[in-house]
Amino acid sequence: MERPRHQGMAKNTYMRWRLPLVCLLWEVAMIVLFGVFVRFGAEADAHWEEEKREMNLTSDIENDFYFRYPSFQDVHVMIFVGFGFLMTFLKRYGFGAVGFNFLLAAFGIQWALLMQGWFHSFKDGKILIGVENLINADFCVGSVCIAFGAILGKTSPIQLLVMTLFQVTLFSVNEYILLNLLHVKDAGGSMTIHTFGAYFGLTVTRVLYRPNLEQSKDKQGSVYHSDLFAMIGTLYLWMYWPSFNSAISDHGDAQHRSAINTYCSLAACVLTTMAFSSMLQKKGKLDMVHIQNATLAGGVAVGTSAEMMLTPYGSLIVGSISGIVSTVGYVYFTPFLESRLHIQDTCGIHNLHAMPGLIGGIVGAITAAAATEDVYGREGFIKAFDFTGVYETRTPSIQGGFQAAGIVVSLLMAFAGGAIVGGILKLPIWGDAAAENCFEDDVYWEVPEDEESDAYHMHNPDKPASP
Amino acid sequence: MERPRHQGMAKNTYMRWRLPLVCLLWEVAMIVLFGVFVRFGAEADAHWEEEKREMNLTSDIENDFYFRYPSFQDVHVMIFVGFGFLMTFLKRYGFGAVGFNFLLAAFGIQWALLMQGWFHSFKDGKILIGVENLINADFCVGSVCIAFGAILGKTSPIQLLVMTLFQVTLFSVNEYILLNLLHVKDAGGSMTIHTFGAYFGLTVTRVLYRPNLEQSKDKQGSVYHSDLFAMIGTLYLWMYWPSFNSAISDHGDAQHRSAINTYCSLAACVLTTMAFSSMLQKKGKLDMVHIQNATLAGGVAVGTSAEMMLTPYGSLIVGSISGIVSTVGYVYFTPFLESRLHIQDTCGIHNLHAMPGLIGGIVGAITAAAATEDVYGREGFIKAFDFTGVYETRTPSIQGGFQAAGIVVSLLMAFAGGAIVGGILKLPIWGDAAAENCFEDDVYWEVPEDEESDAYHMHNPDKPASP
Amino acid sequence: MERPRHQGMAKNTYMRWRLPLVCLLWEVAMIVLFGVFVRFGAEADAHWEEEKREMNLTSDIENDFYFRYPSFQDVHVMIFVGFGFLMTFLKRYGFGAVGFNFLLAAFGIQWALLMQGWFHSFKDGKILIGVENLINADFCVGSVCIAFGAILGKTSPIQLLVMTLFQVTLFSVNEYILLNLLHVKDAGGSMTIHTFGAYFGLTVTRVLYRPNLEQSKDKQGSVYHSDLFAMIGTLYLWMYWPSFNSAISDHGDAQHRSAINTYCSLAACVLTTMAFSSMLQKKGKLDMVHIQNATLAGGVAVGTSAEMMLTPYGSLIVGSISGIVSTVGYVYFTPFLESRLHIQDTCGIHNLHAMPGLIGGIVGAITAAAATEDVYGREGFIKAFDFTGVYETRTPSIQGGFQAAGIVVSLLMAFAGGAIVGGILKLPIWGDAAAENCFEDDVYWEVPEDEESDAYHMHNPDKPASP
Repeated sequence: MERPRHQGMAKNTYMRWRLPLVCLLWEVAMIVLFGVFVRFGAEADAHWEEEKREMNLTSDIENDFYFRYPSFQDVHVMIFVGFGFLMTFLKRYGFGAVGFNFLLAAFGIQWALLMQGWFHSFKDGKILIGVENLINADFCVGSVCIAFGAILGKTSPIQLLVMTLFQVTLFSVNEYILLNLLHVKDAGGSMTIHTFGAYFGLTVTRVLYRPNLEQSKDKQGSVYHSDLFAMIGTLYLWMYWPSFNSAISDHGDAQHRSAINTYCSLAACVLTTMAFSSMLQKKGKLDMVHIQNATLAGGVAVGTSAEMMLTPYGSLIVGSISGIVSTVGYVYFTPFLESRLHIQDTCGIHNLHAMPGLIGGIVGAITAAAATEDVYGREGFIKAFDFTGVYETRTPSIQGGFQAAGIVVSLLMAFAGGAIVGGILKLPIWGDAAAENCFEDDVYWEVPEDEESDAYHMHNPDKPASP
Repeated sequence: MERPRHQGMAKNTYMRWRLPLVCLLWEVAMIVLFGVFVRFGAEADAHWEEEKREMNLTSDIENDFYFRYPSFQDVHVMIFVGFGFLMTFLKRYGFGAVGFNFLLAAFGIQWALLMQGWFHSFKDGKILIGVENLINADFCVGSVCIAFGAILGKTSPIQLLVMTLFQVTLFSVNEYILLNLLHVKDAGGSMTIHTFGAYFGLTVTRVLYRPNLEQSKDKQGSVYHSDLFAMIGTLYLWMYWPSFNSAISDHGDAQHRSAINTYCSLAACVLTTMAFSSMLQKKGKLDMVHIQNATLAGGVAVGTSAEMMLTPYGSLIVGSISGIVSTVGYVYFTPFLESRLHIQDTCGIHNLHAMPGLIGGIVGAITAAAATEDVYGREGFIKAFDFTGVYETRTPSIQGGFQAAGIVVSLLMAFAGGAIVGGILKLPIWGDAAAENCFEDDVYWEVPEDEESDAYHMHNPDKPASP
Repeated sequence: MERPRHQGMAKNTYMRWRLPLVCLLWEVAMIVLFGVFVRFGAEADAHWEEEKREMNLTSDIENDFYFRYPSFQDVHVMIFVGFGFLMTFLKRYGFGAVGFNFLLAAFGIQWALLMQGWFHSFKDGKILIGVENLINADFCVGSVCIAFGAILGKTSPIQLLVMTLFQVTLFSVNEYILLNLLHVKDAGGSMTIHTFGAYFGLTVTRVLYRPNLEQSKDKQGSVYHSDLFAMIGTLYLWMYWPSFNSAISDHGDAQHRSAINTYCSLAACVLTTMAFSSMLQKKGKLDMVHIQNATLAGGVAVGTSAEMMLTPYGSLIVGSISGIVSTVGYVYFTPFLESRLHIQDTCGIHNLHAMPGLIGGIVGAITAAAATEDVYGREGFIKAFDFTGVYETRTPSIQGGFQAAGIVVSLLMAFAGGAIVGGILKLPIWGDAAAENCFEDDVYWEVPEDEESDAYHMHNPDKPASP
């Protein structure tokens, strides 16, 4: 039974040839490029026994797999379930949230393995991959998931794939500049993932500004159960964030410390979020939007510094502040950004990723600048900041300066990249929906005819309550 | 559109100043105390390289992080998703279940790091923390989540924070008495977490007895989808319980054995729960309440003994019995407790944690008393029960006696502590809701106006079916 | 309030004595058999300290627990949450999907520990178990969960328990033939788990053919939220599949490589699934059925070869193809199987497990046959295929032949076993529901009276909209 839903649909959202074409072409390209370039690294290759002898390792447990695989799986869950379900809060866009996130991330990790591989794991004409590459690919895609949050509900799957292609590329360039040229530390990605990803996404959504979006305003809210689905995403992001920030840190104390700092920061963040959520609402009630999002700001804000000697109380302070900033952002900044700057930010990534990401970059710069051999120990100091080779003479304060430079570079890359990619996405060939059909799964998905959709129509007086 | 919901609301549930005040004051206190006391332990500190040399460790993989981090993450999921979603079964209290659990646990782990730290990780004026402390903090908070189950839907978030403050304190004292003074083994916390937490919560709910609770009886049930959300909680608790019981066991065989015993016990528990759920219902149908809860009793009931040589068949027996006891409890004891003893136990924690916790303590005492050097080997025997130093001469039967004493101490602490804390929570300043508004998110949360809430009102003949 | 739902129910679905009897009898049998046979393996036994000395191990981290426990937990989640929630897509069978899966898997893992133990871990009259046995038991039960997918909604819990008993037995025999007699490699179970499980289930559902199933056609679909619940299952299967395929591989490079290959294959599979889902639908819209299922085919299809030197681009190719085959299967084969061959396959396991399982077996045979000492290194070659002892002289091409034989044996076992077990399940004593009550939780579960069930009845014009 067909309902006359999209009477006003002026735009062509027909995906039948365009989406398959893009998916298949790109997958073929991936296969060809992987065939030419990608091989197993020494720890995943069948020659491992020889490698072990050469490196004087006595046990298989020294394989990097055992140091990082549990964290990898946690990060993997964050990308696919965490981001995917976090965005299911919209009443009629759950399929798009979790399904398009799935699509773009699955494509993105392949392309990221290549892009990051060329920059970081390229040897004798081949990209040699291991578990750390998988984590980094997930990280890279994380920045795309963040940007997706800004344009959620307003773009076609093809636009998302196009954005992923470009954003992964730019991410990798930015990451290379920061990690290799500026020699910046950013294990949890406050700058490379959050600051870059969020400002990129905000720029894109600014370029794609839709003046008539209030036509789908009734669909921009949540329903009771969609808020619970979103809490699944929130909690998995929250619980596994210690793994996120420690996943690619140095073996031993650095991984251990990152996890502890992140755990502390996140715990503090929950309390200040709850406090401000209640305080900023006239009736003093808690708002699920804040609980779902601002509680996570504490993880973002220690992304750079978690592996440093931030200390547990330092983490509590950073987490507390970021929860406040993020909640205040949802209440005051998001409406302001939309009405004044024409930045329509569906998930409020400005509050969850952009501002906390900046905080994270700054805290990282300060923590690095404040590092002393006394606190770290001579060996620990050198190891923590990799002050070896050409960087042997770098001092903490210089490192702090470079860290700060990393923030600026990330911002510039985000603005410039977002503007260009936003322009590309504006071309009228990608099949995005008209304003009145935004935030509606029905445009791109076969949606079951169900009680809920009936009930939904009860709200629309001009549609019959029962089909 | 505002609905005239709370006409009868006599109580002041306005949270706007009280909740923020409590959250912010306490978070500031945490920051100050962490600043004074909490530092990284040797394995998370940047001096780890020196530590490694001193301890003659050849590899970073010997860092405790790699022994315990995967289990830690599983426990973390149990506390936040497991307990949180388990309690979403109520039709209109999903936000409160998962959100308040989030709030109290996030506060509780900070306070637990301090309390447990003072008792167990205090050195030269500082609390030195590592991954094991994080696990123990989660464990401690687990006992608060359990108590929350008894009062679910009937308390304000402030009451929950106050309860958390006191319960964490009492938990830590009780734990210190058991582990350090009585030298009792309780790695999975049958006594310290479950027995203590459950009887504490039951005492609190007894003190907070609400004679008119039947006024919100229509909201005490589940709806179809809320039962599925609750199953997410159930399954994560069930699947990760082997990690729970093995998380802080000794490295090597003890962790390995705990996981196996718990796996076996839980598997058996599912079958006896299903059997009795069907058997005790006139129509022979299965009851989701039992499946959601009693299937977990097997994990509780081997909490003390899992790391001992309980053996797989011993685990099956314990799991089978606890599933039966728990299911019978839901059918017969819970109504009895409510009608006769005025103990209103929303989630039935008496069946899931209290009785199985007692079983767990007893099984632990018996298993310890029955230990022989033959079964454990000389070295294994000493290691398993830590019969070193002043405890060198302790025999299995004496150990069994001390284990039994641990149960009694836990019960006494729970009753006394619960009575006092219940009295404090009864003060009319914490903003709890009136009886007719219990089990209703609308009191403390911004709840979206949605189809479901409309449909819900269809049941109330005095309210219009469509807004 | 009782609704006159099952007027036409000719069959006796009363479970009150039958289900408890089966559950309790079987659990007692498990206890007895575990008591006689099952003991801790050396790495979980309290004699571990002595074992360590004997094996010259210097650290507890060498305990197999630390190599495999994280993967075990991921596999555990796949079995209980992954399969359980994947099947909740039906609008009114969520309790049965997740609850019966829970029941059969909890029984199945106990019986599998015994069956597989007799074949693989039997020593001096005892079955010695460790974490690898737990993984293998979960794997074995995975094949039952697969078969459950074919008969979902049409069988009683007793039938499922009977099927589990037999299928676990047959699985273990088949596995023994493949792994021990044919010396076949199949770490991720393309043949033993997927091919066997799926064709077994398809044969069973063929034998149980219900000609009047269209009477419950209205309940065979999904509703909006049930599709989101199913996506939880999908994503956990998808994310953790690298753990599934690597869980029992050799320590070191083999585990590492399996995870990478599976990660790549699954990523590619998502893109081709999306492409064909859109392409094969007239309106070009995506179908949740495909996204929920066909995206997983890439994990199945590298189950045999993932631990071999399949290479990342090889994985992309296999994943791409299996996504296409699986999606095409849902669109064309499933209706054909039902209308022409009378195979009613509720979840479409033919597309998700049967065909991709065959692909996996074939790819494994080819990859084995193509192995060279050049690619694997001399040592790696021998280790990868276990070419030691009596197999010292086996060549890759011979190994490829045996791998192919493994497919054939699995198919034969599945068809023969499925036919017999289907016949047993057809006996009119197990309490299955009549055709018009299929796909309906109300038959075996206490279902809450809720808004949704009301709304559901709006679609049935002959039932009142409000109770």
